[in-house]
Amino acid sequence: MQLSTKHLLGIRNLASRDIKLILDTANQFKEVLQRPVKKVPSLREVTIVNLFYENSTRTRISFELAEKRLSADTINFAAGNSSASKGESLLDTVNNILSMKVDMVVMRHSASGAPHFLAKHISASIINAGDGINEHPTQALLDAFSIREKLGSLEGKKIAIIGDIMHSRVALSNIYLLKKMGAEVMLAGPPTLIPTYIEEAFDVKVEYNLKKALQWCDVANVLRIQLERQNQVLFSSLREYNLAYGIKKSMLDSLAKEIIIMHPGPINRGVEIDSDVADSSRSIILQQVENGVAVRMAVLYLLAGSGGE
Amino acid sequence: MQLSTKHLLGIRNLASRDIKLILDTANQFKEVLQRPVKKVPSLREVTIVNLFYENSTRTRISFELAEKRLSADTINFAAGNSSASKGESLLDTVNNILSMKVDMVVMRHSASGAPHFLAKHISASIINAGDGINEHPTQALLDAFSIREKLGSLEGKKIAIIGDIMHSRVALSNIYLLKKMGAEVMLAGPPTLIPTYIEEAFDVKVEYNLKKALQWCDVANVLRIQLERQNQVLFSSLREYNLAYGIKKSMLDSLAKEIIIMHPGPINRGVEIDSDVADSSRSIILQQVENGVAVRMAVLYLLAGSGGE
Amino acid sequence: MQLSTKHLLGIRNLASRDIKLILDTANQFKEVLQRPVKKVPSLREVTIVNLFYENSTRTRISFELAEKRLSADTINFAAGNSSASKGESLLDTVNNILSMKVDMVVMRHSASGAPHFLAKHISASIINAGDGINEHPTQALLDAFSIREKLGSLEGKKIAIIGDIMHSRVALSNIYLLKKMGAEVMLAGPPTLIPTYIEEAFDVKVEYNLKKALQWCDVANVLRIQLERQNQVLFSSLREYNLAYGIKKSMLDSLAKEIIIMHPGPINRGVEIDSDVADSSRSIILQQVENGVAVRMAVLYLLAGSGGE
Repeated sequence: MQLSTKHLLGIRNLASRDIKLILDTANQFKEVLQRPVKKVPSLREVTIVNLFYENSTRTRISFELAEKRLSADTINFAAGNSSASKGESLLDTVNNILSMKVDMVVMRHSASGAPHFLAKHISASIINAGDGINEHPTQALLDAFSIREKLGSLEGKKIAIIGDIMHSRVALSNIYLLKKMGAEVMLAGPPTLIPTYIEEAFDVKVEYNLKKALQWCDVANVLRIQLERQNQVLFSSLREYNLAYGIKKSMLDSLAKEIIIMHPGPINRGVEIDSDVADSSRSIILQQVENGVAVRMAVLYLLAGSGGE
Repeated sequence: MQLSTKHLLGIRNLASRDIKLILDTANQFKEVLQRPVKKVPSLREVTIVNLFYENSTRTRISFELAEKRLSADTINFAAGNSSASKGESLLDTVNNILSMKVDMVVMRHSASGAPHFLAKHISASIINAGDGINEHPTQALLDAFSIREKLGSLEGKKIAIIGDIMHSRVALSNIYLLKKMGAEVMLAGPPTLIPTYIEEAFDVKVEYNLKKALQWCDVANVLRIQLERQNQVLFSSLREYNLAYGIKKSMLDSLAKEIIIMHPGPINRGVEIDSDVADSSRSIILQQVENGVAVRMAVLYLLAGSGGE
Repeated sequence: MQLSTKHLLGIRNLASRDIKLILDTANQFKEVLQRPVKKVPSLREVTIVNLFYENSTRTRISFELAEKRLSADTINFAAGNSSASKGESLLDTVNNILSMKVDMVVMRHSASGAPHFLAKHISASIINAGDGINEHPTQALLDAFSIREKLGSLEGKKIAIIGDIMHSRVALSNIYLLKKMGAEVMLAGPPTLIPTYIEEAFDVKVEYNLKKALQWCDVANVLRIQLERQNQVLFSSLREYNLAYGIKKSMLDSLAKEIIIMHPGPINRGVEIDSDVADSSRSIILQQVENGVAVRMAVLYLLAGSGGE
């Protein structure tokens, strides 16, 4: 089985059968990761550059581990110590790297659309590891994988995405993916952080009352408040945000059912989620991280087009 | 033979037989490092994260070389380009990394006790590569290895540790280790840089006169003046420090015997040690660096618990 | 065949037969890089440190790829996160690294002569990856390789080096190499950027008129205007520089012949070269980058002295 795409730029234009293929392949890699020997020789001939123009802990390390466990050769490139500071254009930088016979580029960039621009001009496979406020496709894939693992399937499941929908590439990729896979989606948060058009544009529900959102859903995917990206005051204070939209144990205990709590990390304890929720058995936050490596192995493996393990 | 501990957090609570086992194992790895092929497949299945929240040249490179020569997979993480700048807590960062199925964490942190805190909460092996002003256990182990290599054993040998005892994690780890292994320890330096309680607390000698310390000892382990960490004026000037406590060739020549000069590096030439001493045959500073790789290979190998090479 | 030198510090003192040997060996590695499997086991036993005291994208990545394709173990070291910030001397840093049994050092430094200084004091092979305004030997070798690949040989060919000759280590290494290999060399640019003595010192032509330089040459090697290094105003503005010395399509079209356009990168589009020239079929800029990996593999392989692949 092959992917019908050469790049992974976003979920928006990804076919449903490609999503299924990635999730099924990730399942096999998750089994590999349970073994004492977690390494397979699949990409022994492949060289991958990790091109990170924005800071990241888990995404960069997750990709690097996925690459190493596939036996690929890995080159790391962080914008700080590079020709980026000499004003070289993105396209020139990438073309130069590709001229050195690199096979794949994993890329994070603060500009929305940066990887899409590159994909039009270069021959190697590009994997979007987050572009501005646009998409973060591997996060949505690992979220979907984690839900499927927990609930059996995505079809008909009720997922509430809670927090700063406006600035979140994680939210957007999740909406695309969940709708394609037949899940119901609700967006919850303060009105200032939810785009007004979004209900019709994506056929999703919108809810400004946290309690109602939690009562409705099977899974709550709680977004990070991006403290470092906030340029405007969109809510009065972190304390007030926590009071109105922070996920609290008492509220979860008061529900008539058990729901699953997810978060793409890194979490702000006491802001969008309280510690006793994040560390509880309802939370699958660390499983998401674990699944991230398996999902990224699947994406790299399939894009490399290697016909067998 | 197995270590009786899962982590290497410090020398303080390390059993004497564990110290001996590490030093003996390091001996075997030192032989490996003399061969044309310096690599062994021992940790081919192991993934190690080097988590450095403080700058370091030699310690980070020494660990990375030790890991690569054991054929481990290595992930580097420096706090600057990471979620640390997003305010993620240390425990969350490490838990996330471990969820990716990492086997060991080598960690340097400016907070004393940071690795001990982690060890209580996580399942992977932690190796302390220096925590605040607390301990730097692999430095003490490589110092002990270097003395033993030169003098045959530590038992009954006289070691003077000279300089800023107050702020030195190297001094503290050395005191613990040398006392456990039956050496005699003297601490020498200006009164402002030697804690007042220390003589009784550790059963060591204290000496404010450099000449007397050198006359007494078999080995002088000269500490670095941490120019970049000094917040208070604890001595009048670097020039005066050098005049009173700098190790000079003339003073060494005037002793009735030959003593061995050690330094954990990086050295400040002309401050705590003069160049003609650092580069003389009395100095084993570069041998310490060489031995550091062998000692770290031994620590990693033993903690990984792999029963045979 | 063996090189007659242990280091690659510059082209100035490199024997012509060594240059030929490197270029011929690079030819074989270029063939390797066309294969699906681009890796050879030649340096499986070798550990190389990349010691970069100055920022670099392509040079650092090019060396790292060359090392990995030769199966060497690689350690990266950037001055920012290191003991360099603790004031450790260059020689101490390198001696420490070498004590860890590292076989080769690839080094970039802002001080002219830094690698030459080291080579006098250490035992490992040093490869100069650019030192101040002195030399950048692997750049000259890959430029020569690219010309030879295009024109069959260097003997008697006319090469114009255009731009800031005064501050360019690329220019200096190119001049040395091209003269040794029997090419004719012309230096072109504004009088303020061409040293007055240079015509006699190196037996080269000097030309202040760009059109005349282009009419004369077979190959134009266009230097980067080092925007970030300019401390003095040596020309009135970037716009005026572009008008007088920028390479334009219209001027190339008006020549009676086709010439080859080279640039060591990263290019400043619209300053020293226009986009429609840089991206045209006259330009071999990306081939230079590709050839860089093959040339660096040849240098590393030959300096390691491994008698066979």
